Amino acid sequence: MQTYRAVQVRQAGTLEIVQRPVPEPGPGEVRIRVEACGVCHTDALTVDNKSRALTYPRVPGHEVAGRIDALGAGVSGWQVGQRVGVGFLGGHCGHCGACRRGLFVDCPNQRISGLTHDGGYAEILVAHVHGLVALPDGLDAREAAPLLCAGVTTYNALRNSPARGGDLVAVQGIGGLGHLGIQYARHMGFRVAAIARGAEKAALATRLGAAHYIDSVEKDPAKALQELGGARVILATAADSKSMGPLVGGLGPRGRMIVVGGSGEPIPVSGTQLIFGGRSVEGALTGSAIDAEDTLAFSVQENVRAMIETVPLENAAEAYARMMSNKARFRMVMTMT
Amino acid sequence: MQTYRAVQVRQAGTLEIVQRPVPEPGPGEVRIRVEACGVCHTDALTVDNKSRALTYPRVPGHEVAGRIDALGAGVSGWQVGQRVGVGFLGGHCGHCGACRRGLFVDCPNQRISGLTHDGGYAEILVAHVHGLVALPDGLDAREAAPLLCAGVTTYNALRNSPARGGDLVAVQGIGGLGHLGIQYARHMGFRVAAIARGAEKAALATRLGAAHYIDSVEKDPAKALQELGGARVILATAADSKSMGPLVGGLGPRGRMIVVGGSGEPIPVSGTQLIFGGRSVEGALTGSAIDAEDTLAFSVQENVRAMIETVPLENAAEAYARMMSNKARFRMVMTMT
Amino acid sequence: MQTYRAVQVRQAGTLEIVQRPVPEPGPGEVRIRVEACGVCHTDALTVDNKSRALTYPRVPGHEVAGRIDALGAGVSGWQVGQRVGVGFLGGHCGHCGACRRGLFVDCPNQRISGLTHDGGYAEILVAHVHGLVALPDGLDAREAAPLLCAGVTTYNALRNSPARGGDLVAVQGIGGLGHLGIQYARHMGFRVAAIARGAEKAALATRLGAAHYIDSVEKDPAKALQELGGARVILATAADSKSMGPLVGGLGPRGRMIVVGGSGEPIPVSGTQLIFGGRSVEGALTGSAIDAEDTLAFSVQENVRAMIETVPLENAAEAYARMMSNKARFRMVMTMT
Amino acid sequence: MQTYRAVQVRQAGTLEIVQRPVPEPGPGEVRIRVEACGVCHTDALTVDNKSRALTYPRVPGHEVAGRIDALGAGVSGWQVGQRVGVGFLGGHCGHCGACRRGLFVDCPNQRISGLTHDGGYAEILVAHVHGLVALPDGLDAREAAPLLCAGVTTYNALRNSPARGGDLVAVQGIGGLGHLGIQYARHMGFRVAAIARGAEKAALATRLGAAHYIDSVEKDPAKALQELGGARVILATAADSKSMGPLVGGLGPRGRMIVVGGSGEPIPVSGTQLIFGGRSVEGALTGSAIDAEDTLAFSVQENVRAMIETVPLENAAEAYARMMSNKARFRMVMTMT
Repeated sequence: MQTYRAVQVRQAGTLEIVQRPVPEPGPGEVRIRVEACGVCHTDALTVDNKSRALTYPRVPGHEVAGRIDALGAGVSGWQVGQRVGVGFLGGHCGHCGACRRGLFVDCPNQRISGLTHDGGYAEILVAHVHGLVALPDGLDAREAAPLLCAGVTTYNALRNSPARGGDLVAVQGIGGLGHLGIQYARHMGFRVAAIARGAEKAALATRLGAAHYIDSVEKDPAKALQELGGARVILATAADSKSMGPLVGGLGPRGRMIVVGGSGEPIPVSGTQLIFGGRSVEGALTGSAIDAEDTLAFSVQENVRAMIETVPLENAAEAYARMMSNKARFRMVMTMT
Repeated sequence: MQTYRAVQVRQAGTLEIVQRPVPEPGPGEVRIRVEACGVCHTDALTVDNKSRALTYPRVPGHEVAGRIDALGAGVSGWQVGQRVGVGFLGGHCGHCGACRRGLFVDCPNQRISGLTHDGGYAEILVAHVHGLVALPDGLDAREAAPLLCAGVTTYNALRNSPARGGDLVAVQGIGGLGHLGIQYARHMGFRVAAIARGAEKAALATRLGAAHYIDSVEKDPAKALQELGGARVILATAADSKSMGPLVGGLGPRGRMIVVGGSGEPIPVSGTQLIFGGRSVEGALTGSAIDAEDTLAFSVQENVRAMIETVPLENAAEAYARMMSNKARFRMVMTMT
Repeated sequence: MQTYRAVQVRQAGTLEIVQRPVPEPGPGEVRIRVEACGVCHTDALTVDNKSRALTYPRVPGHEVAGRIDALGAGVSGWQVGQRVGVGFLGGHCGHCGACRRGLFVDCPNQRISGLTHDGGYAEILVAHVHGLVALPDGLDAREAAPLLCAGVTTYNALRNSPARGGDLVAVQGIGGLGHLGIQYARHMGFRVAAIARGAEKAALATRLGAAHYIDSVEKDPAKALQELGGARVILATAADSKSMGPLVGGLGPRGRMIVVGGSGEPIPVSGTQLIFGGRSVEGALTGSAIDAEDTLAFSVQENVRAMIETVPLENAAEAYARMMSNKARFRMVMTMT
Repeated sequence: MQTYRAVQVRQAGTLEIVQRPVPEPGPGEVRIRVEACGVCHTDALTVDNKSRALTYPRVPGHEVAGRIDALGAGVSGWQVGQRVGVGFLGGHCGHCGACRRGLFVDCPNQRISGLTHDGGYAEILVAHVHGLVALPDGLDAREAAPLLCAGVTTYNALRNSPARGGDLVAVQGIGGLGHLGIQYARHMGFRVAAIARGAEKAALATRLGAAHYIDSVEKDPAKALQELGGARVILATAADSKSMGPLVGGLGPRGRMIVVGGSGEPIPVSGTQLIFGGRSVEGALTGSAIDAEDTLAFSVQENVRAMIETVPLENAAEAYARMMSNKARFRMVMTMT
């Protein structure tokens, strides 16, 4: 019997390497030989047992890039050997109200990689075709992996926002999400203001494409944004929800803050700041499989890449710890070969 | 010298009746003989000295209906004797960035009735033409007055919302704003859920056009809305900002809560509830003069009226107190003749 | 062997009644016992052999209401005995780019009732679950049937249009589509102008909810609409495409004409009229299964019904001829029981 | 008495140089010392007496860049010596319905440079403040001039379109408008397909930023666009309206063709192509003064410039003739110093 290596969580807080028998894909599924998998802050839901959708043991990982190894029954349109990826949303149900409206991202019965189903911290992954992302030639597995969550989350939020070419768009946080958000925003023709703590990130922000850098230690970001004319859009990527509330004051008339990060605590939003100026705060959840394909295509077109640190799968625990301690610059990617 | 009666605030908390000389309108202004003026909760900004834009003495009142009495220099397109109204936004500057973009509501130099300039608690009001609202034949002054703030605020928020005919739209609060919001929502073809405290408002909600009544004492409104399918739009009119945060959980996918009321405290918004479902929270500030004309036209077309209690101008203090104690059913209107 | 009656086209121009063996539904399909089927002008594609997607013999009919009789393999979420309908779009493929974007209506591999697959001019219909529409209690089969094409086409076009409550919305043509369009528009709170030929339809237009009637024989409709302030939206339902072009001149600034009818000839659109005023012309194709459910729910909520003439299935040829000669007032519906 | 040189049309078809007395600006106006003025195909309205709004003699020119020389009564916010420009829309009335809705571009009483009022083929221009465009440091007068019509027309149409970063956007025509449209589209992150006649423009298209070049002589552009996936937006800039109709077939689902050029003849649009795919055709008219400021800011930010040929004012007739014969590469700009 063939086996493969997987990194699983059997009890909260512990990542262990195990050998598992290679599974057969069920109907509507494919088996993927994983080549690379990104490490994302959301993996903490799995590692720290923070979701009710979760049962142990569970393999984390939702930034998965590899090749199709076998097709389940009834799968058409995908070939063995094809390069594919899988992100956070591993496949919508197709039957609920949201799905019947085409709002796949909002499906309440969604298969979630690394949470309801085993994810990509492994050499083998079984995925549903609804979650499959075709990978373009221009990106290798390590490049593609982090774009399947951090990439699509920021790209999709920005392209669906009301910002237009030339508008002032602020990106709060220069981390795994933010360093991609700045690049995508710049390549959509926005005038980008990067917001982060401390002066030392200014040069990086400029290199990524920011026209303005706001050190939130030195200056109130809302005030700084108003001095620049008021932001049309703020992409809020920080891990701290409380820090997002005051940013609303940095929006111009009809401006919108789009929340893609946060700590789970409430965001304290001033109703007065919403009312005067017709401002809004909106959430955005990654994207569908085809949104991810669009992300990859745009990344190739504009030569946008995540900054990554690569480690072999057997160092998963170390990679996870490094990511959680905010030391990664900026995405950890595990490789399986 | 001719004089007129006005109700002014000279020190916080006191409304006093005074005689003033009738003024001449300046360039771009008209003088209005006031026939009716609504009493709005926002008048507390003036009475309780809560705005930095305010100097005393000041006449409150921003739901003003009357007739043009005299034209200032350079005024064209308006006639003496014409029936007109003035709402909260008394005239944009025309020169700032917001005005040059046509976003008059967002003009930071806005003349605000009863705050930066004297309002309608008086027999005479001098108004800027940018704030003038032509009154239609189908509404008398008492009917028109409360629609110039409470009416346009709810009508405009609803018509600019993403809700479409047949969608579930919730109105939080059945007061001065909410009892109009329910009617407008119903007449736009929405399926309306009214949310209020206690069972006794259920019959009224139904009469105003609500298909569903949610007693927020008995049941969590967010849960109740989810059982109805999830709201596309929630119009939040309550005086208590803290009560608005949990309503976000009652929105369906891509649902939007529109804030038009509140207490000034932060609204605690769950980032998780925003992200999952792509939900949003937005503020809406009354409307421009032509938005108010649209409101009046729609009110005539659909036979929507505010429920009002009428008192003579000399009872202004009493009317204000009754409004502030939430006893008015639902708008107090003062008459000047 | 059990058989059922069907009205099929074996050669162009001829509808013949035949007995067919009752089929078994395939995977993902259900068998429906048809109770009523509307007769639509688009059936001419089938009867007159005007589509390349067509092979004979073929049963026309895409406004089908009945009950599920049997379930194919893999069908979940639908029960035998459940009341269901099927419209023009009989089921999207689920795999193409449009489907992966949730744009089911735009699926190029769509199953089209009465064209690529047998339709509802029959006692039995096999349908794909992607095309199934749950019928609400408030509508019987005869009421529901015409709403599954004429209804959803007009309701969906209007609710997705930029028109807001109180806006001037014109409906061109008072026929199968237009007489529903007027009703839906009215119940969304629009100010409705009906456009038709001759004075005799004025009273009907008023009864259906039109505030204004424009006799296109007497007066240029574009000019008449401009006198009413310019239309925000024109719903063009006429069978004559050439008549639509000049209507663009009746749109107000940023107005949009939405095309749901026509003869297949080009619509001559003035570029100058598009440019000055930022006007647009857009097409709208019926809707998805859940759009149809929304249509039925709105029709129950607002008590909107098609005006129908009912005939038994065996009179299909007569019903079709009456519809084609524009004598039906306004939709022909065949019943099977 | 001081005089200035102007190039005026006294009878159709003739441009003559005259000396005129320097005028005083009226209330709300400024006098501008012109430094550069672009030559636009729309100038033919004036030269060839094609507009009912026109009386002779008239100075054409609506791409005007210069400096404020004198302020009329009541002008605030603008200084003598300030660098300013004026485009086609020379100032909205401020009083009509469109203006009261903030839709300045749609004002029917608009002052139109070179048509209702004298334009910029002159050393001096009197302009209304509503039409004034502040010029940024990054652009000299010759660079700014053509962006005030050709620039804002294409930039504004594209930024207001539904296209998002990565979408396929086609630009029809590589001329005065199109060569800017390609650049703006590219700098908004679109995947650009340029459509023109003949193979020789391919290299230029690539240099301007097009990813794809479609030679409309060799290949049906609609078919070519479908092979690229279908366009989200087509910017139609060609002088020939009839050529635009077939392009609709090159739009993807929900795609939109935006018309900014044309010959005045009707565009023949297939209703079937509109309906299947929910496609649309829309017009876009240049932009407001602040839209033009946004255009200039974006051009500086992204280093977009028009390709120009410069001639002195006294060669106006020659410049106009060269432009009309399509020999200019791509905008003629006259200089006054």
